Order: sequence, then structure tokens, then C-alpha cells
Amino acid sequence: MPFADALTAATKKKSPICVGLDPQLEKLPAELSKDPDGVLAFTKGIIDAVKDIACCAKINLAFFEVLGWQGMKVFWETCTYAKERNLIVIADGKRNDIGSTCEAYAEAYLYEGSPVDALTVTPYLGSDGVAPFIERCVKNDKGIFVLVKTSNKSSGELQDLPVGDEVVHEHLAQLVESWGAQHLGKETSLSCVGAVVGATYPEEMKYLRTLMPHIPFLIPGYGAQGGTAQDVKYGFIRHGTGAIVNASRSIIYASSAADWKEVAGKAAERMAQEIAATLG
Amino acid sequence: MPFADALTAATKKKSPICVGLDPQLEKLPAELSKDPDGVLAFTKGIIDAVKDIACCAKINLAFFEVLGWQGMKVFWETCTYAKERNLIVIADGKRNDIGSTCEAYAEAYLYEGSPVDALTVTPYLGSDGVAPFIERCVKNDKGIFVLVKTSNKSSGELQDLPVGDEVVHEHLAQLVESWGAQHLGKETSLSCVGAVVGATYPEEMKYLRTLMPHIPFLIPGYGAQGGTAQDVKYGFIRHGTGAIVNASRSIIYASSAADWKEVAGKAAERMAQEIAATLG
Repeated sequence: MPFADALTAATKKKSPICVGLDPQLEKLPAELSKDPDGVLAFTKGIIDAVKDIACCAKINLAFFEVLGWQGMKVFWETCTYAKERNLIVIADGKRNDIGSTCEAYAEAYLYEGSPVDALTVTPYLGSDGVAPFIERCVKNDKGIFVLVKTSNKSSGELQDLPVGDEVVHEHLAQLVESWGAQHLGKETSLSCVGAVVGATYPEEMKYLRTLMPHIPFLIPGYGAQGGTAQDVKYGFIRHGTGAIVNASRSIIYASSAADWKEVAGKAAERMAQEIAATLG
Repeated sequence: MPFADALTAATKKKSPICVGLDPQLEKLPAELSKDPDGVLAFTKGIIDAVKDIACCAKINLAFFEVLGWQGMKVFWETCTYAKERNLIVIADGKRNDIGSTCEAYAEAYLYEGSPVDALTVTPYLGSDGVAPFIERCVKNDKGIFVLVKTSNKSSGELQDLPVGDEVVHEHLAQLVESWGAQHLGKETSLSCVGAVVGATYPEEMKYLRTLMPHIPFLIPGYGAQGGTAQDVKYGFIRHGTGAIVNASRSIIYASSAADWKEVAGKAAERMAQEIAATLG
């Protein structure tokens, strides 16, 4: 099934919530060991707690890479575990390169049968830094989310530079739409090419939705970074589809006591309700 | 020793040649196994062959990630091997993120005592996607190379967008200079913050050198991608310092027969001579 169709079906069945797995040793629940084994127990516990509420798990490569190759082993084990529990698995790696190196990144994460369903990609290198990813998306029913407007304070330094009567990220948005519009799902008019659009810039999100009508949005910045349900609603297309909203810290670190799984599940449920209420 | 001083000393002692280790299974010498063990034998062989000619080894993460966690184990073993043989080790990962995720990437590669001396970084997120790396550079005598103008054909799609009377990558170059000028070496006026500037755009390189007087350049695109010794000379500051020139395929795959190490060493020597002749 094309990625866009799978994503839409999952958001309808469960919710547009994406839970970000950012395991930091010093923040793990008190009962877990502060090592790769503890990280795996943590990611599995969070996955079990949210699997019937969230449509996606966004697994953040940096927190596994920092544990060396042992961490990368846990990364792949986490992806497989999440996939087996019917979560759509997004590897948040913000990878980018050209030529044979880009092919290698694409093959590393989006190969046929990979437990990773989608990868985040940084677009600074232009379309030949994105094409090898899109090729795998089409061939292997995978997806990518291209960074367009990020949620951080200094995102404007490059992304908001004025280019004629628009800004850099608006220009990029039109490139992303042109890359994606050629590869739509069978049951939706959404593409396997998605965009990352931060929750912390709601006015931009509204405009970007008009520039990218076929592009699923991955919206970070909810919760701990300040984004609210009201801020993200313009990212959706209709019936709560076309966008997924990520929260990491506000869910996975909601408790570090023995009740951590239960409290994480409840935090995800509360977030799903907040967003559903806004979408009406 | 600050990164910029170590880099300058190594380029003076050996040459400004950086050898890119991009191990692709299908291109390994015939005598090696097409698996992570074969990759490690290959990277060690190339390192032995070039260690007295090249100042740096650029180790390209994608080609290790595509082999799963077993590949990441070989990545770290390769870095350690190169470091022990007195090469400056550049991890080419083009990493980028914000906040605690960016901290995790910085800590993953640029921790105190890491065999990695420098990391390539993609700047689309702005200065808060770069600051955590610079912090480790200063504290742990490490370096970064920020992508400014890349060597690929479509690099202009974002990098050359007009912003007032300049273009995006020129604007970025001034940001990079401002980030770097605060953190110079003790024996050089070069920074721990470097820039990636492709060999395939020599006119831009000339201008970028004036915009970034304190920034060491990492110049990809030599050899297989079409850059020549004539093209790269404007990246240097004086006496063959201030820039390193990378070649990957034209050195490491110069032969796949039993003489692969010897031929790789000769290819690196020839490249060092070509560049020395142009610098005069």
C-alpha cells in the first residue's frame, strides 16, 4: 500500500498523533538501566503504551547514534518492535547528501521490507539530494518528510530569507509540491513526499498548506516546544487527515516513576482528544 | 591543540589532500569479502596506503549506515584506525537538528577523546542547529565543516536563490564567518568552524574565500566529479594552507585488482603533486 494511503488509514483509525522517541539516558525512568538495554526497555514500553492511540512513532536517530553501534542496534530493534505493533515508523535522521552517498542513505532506511516506513530529509542540496529517496518511496511504498519550516527560534536565518516576493521556505514548499504531486496514493490525493512544518509558526503553516495541497505534514513543536492544538489545525486537509502532530518529551517523559507507561499512554490520549476537539 | 592548528600543521607536513572513504560493497577489491569485514579490511588498507600523503580521511557515514549496526561498528573501528595512524578524521554525516537532538549528534561524534576530529554539518536550521557542535569544537579541540556551496548540479535550487544583491549561500557564508571568527586557533588565524565549498564552482569559491577569511575550506568534487587543481586553488589562503581537497572514488577505486593499495597510494601522490604544482 502506498505510504500516503497507509498514513491516512492509520490517522483515521487511531489519531493523527505521532509519538517521538527521544531516549536520553539521564531521563529514563528510575527503574531502567542507563545503557542501551535500558533504552530498548524504554522504547518498547512507550510503544506498548501508545500503540492503540498514536498512528506513528518517530524514532530519533541522534539518541541512538550517541550510544555508538550498540545504540544503532537498539534503533533497529525499536523500529522492528514498533512496526510489529502496527505503528508507522518514521526515522528522524534529517539525512541529506548527493549521488552514490544519497543512494546509500536511501537504501539504508527505505529498502524493501525495512521496518522504517519514512525518513526525514534536509533539502539544502536541492533535488538531486532528494531524488534517490523518492525513488525508494515509489518502489518500496515508503515516504519522506522534507524539512520546510522548522519549529526552532533561528529557523528563519535561512528559511525566511526574502527571495523576490516570497521567502526561501515558501519557494522550497513549491519545489516539494512539484516533487510530490507526481507520486500520489491510490486512495488519497496525498503524496509519499511529505513536509516538516513546525507548530510554532501557525500563520506560515496556513499559507504552506495552500502551497502544498498534496503534501502530508509532519508537525513538530507541540507541547514542550509551545505549539497548541489551535496552532496545528491549519496543517490538516479534512476529516483529521493530511497531517500528523508529533510530541516527544511531553508524552515519553510524563512520568519517571513506576507508572511511566500508564502516564505516557494517558498523555497521548489527552493530546489526541485536544486535537480532535479542535478539528471538530 | 585547537582543530585549526592541527589541520594546518598536517597540511604543511603532508599535503592538503583529504581521502574520502566511501566503501561500496560492489566496488570493493576482488580479493575482499562483500560484507562489513571486507569493508574494514578495505578502509584499513586505504588508510595504510595514503597515511603519509594525505592530511585527512573523510569517512562517509552513509556507506556504513547502509550495513546496519554492524556497519556502524566498522565505522568506529575505521575512525580509530585512521586516528592512530595520524590522519585527521572527518566524519562526513551532514548532521543537523536542534535542541537536545543537536546536542546528541554533537556528543555522538565530537565528545572528548573521540577518534572523530570533525563532522560535516548542514545549516538549514540556522544557528541553533550549529551552536551545540561549535560548543564541543571549542571544548574538545574538534571542528565542523558547514555545507555552504555543494558540488552537485542542483545545489543552486536553494543555495543560489537571490536574496537582495547576493544569493543564499553568500548570505550563509557571512553567517559562518561570524560563527567561526570568534574561535580561532592559537597558531593560525583559522577557525574550528569550516565550510564545505565544491570544486565544481571555482568562481563562487574565489568570492567565498573573501567572505570567509577565517574559515578552513573542505573542497569536495575533485577528480570523479570534474574539479581540477586549477579550480581549487582559490580556496587556499597561503602556502597551501586554509583548505583541504577531497577525492574519493578516483583514489580508493583506482584499482580493484591485487595492487589496489599501491595504486591508491600512487593516485593520492599524483593528486598531491597536481595541487602543489598549481599552488606554486
